[in-house]
Amino acid sequence: MPHSDECRWLTDTLTRQIPLGAAMGLAIARLDEAGIELTAPLAPNVNDKGTAFGGAMMSLMTLAGWSLPRLALRRAGLAAELVIGRCEVRFLAPVTQDFRAVCDWPAEDAVAEFLDGVRARGKGRLALAPEIVLAGPDGDAVAARLEARYAGLAMNPGDLPS
Amino acid sequence: MPHSDECRWLTDTLTRQIPLGAAMGLAIARLDEAGIELTAPLAPNVNDKGTAFGGAMMSLMTLAGWSLPRLALRRAGLAAELVIGRCEVRFLAPVTQDFRAVCDWPAEDAVAEFLDGVRARGKGRLALAPEIVLAGPDGDAVAARLEARYAGLAMNPGDLPS
Repeated sequence: MPHSDECRWLTDTLTRQIPLGAAMGLAIARLDEAGIELTAPLAPNVNDKGTAFGGAMMSLMTLAGWSLPRLALRRAGLAAELVIGRCEVRFLAPVTQDFRAVCDWPAEDAVAEFLDGVRARGKGRLALAPEIVLAGPDGDAVAARLEARYAGLAMNPGDLPS
Repeated sequence: MPHSDECRWLTDTLTRQIPLGAAMGLAIARLDEAGIELTAPLAPNVNDKGTAFGGAMMSLMTLAGWSLPRLALRRAGLAAELVIGRCEVRFLAPVTQDFRAVCDWPAEDAVAEFLDGVRARGKGRLALAPEIVLAGPDGDAVAARLEARYAGLAMNPGDLPS
C-alpha cells in the first residue's frame, strides 16, 4: 500500500517540517490516484468574523497543491526542492465550518514534463489549482480557489555552498 | 497617543481573534502615518527547506494589508466587516531569517472613497499591496508581494438574522 507510507511521510513534512501545518491542525484525509485532500478544523484557523481566516485557507490550498509535485519528485527518486511561485487567489464564500483543500492530479503529460524539466534542465514547472471545498446539503461548493505555479529545482551537490 | 491604543486593539484582533497570528508569533513593529509593519520570527513559520513558508508570508501580508482599512473603519466609527477578495502573490526570493510585512497607506482619496462606499452603499473597496521586506547589507529587499482587494461590508442590524 504505497499511499499509506506516503501519507506518513507527507504528514511528517506538512506538520513537523512545516510547523504552521500542525498549528492549523492539518491532516491528510485522502491521498489516491485522483489527488489529495487536506483538512483543517475551524477553531485554530478562525478570524475576527468567526469564519476561516483567508491566510489559513491560502496556506491549506498551497500545501495541497505542493504535495502532489512533492510526491511526484519522491516517486521519481529526484533530489529537488519544490517552491511556489506566482499565484492568484479567489475567495468566493465565507467558511463557517471545518474545511478541506482538494487538489487533483493534473494530466499525466504535465507531470512527466515537470519531472523531465527537473532531470534535464534542473528546473520543472507545474501549474495546479487547489480549492477549498465545503460539503453542503446541495453537494460540494467551492469557497476559495488558488491558481499556483510550482517549480521543482534540482539539488546538485556540486553547486551547493560547502 | 492614538497609535498606542490602536496598537493594543489591533494586536488583540490579530493574535487573539485570529489565533493563527499568535501561532505565527506576529507582532506590530510599527503603526504610524506612513503605514504598518508586522513582524514574525522564522522558527514557527519555517518550511521543509528551512526558509519561510509561503502560506505564512501570505498570511502576514494579508494581515498587514487588512489592518489599514480595519483601522480606517474604526477611526470613522463605522460598523463593518472587512474581507479579502481576489489577490495575487509573487514570491521573489527565499526568506532565511525573521521577516516583516510592510503596507503603506494608500492615497487619502482612496481611503475616503472606501469609507464613502461603506457609508453610502454598504460596500467599499480598497486595493493594497503589502510586501515582505528583508533588511540586508545593501538596504531593504522585497521577498514577496501581495496585491489584494479588500471589501468593507456595512453591518446593518436590521438585515442580520436574529
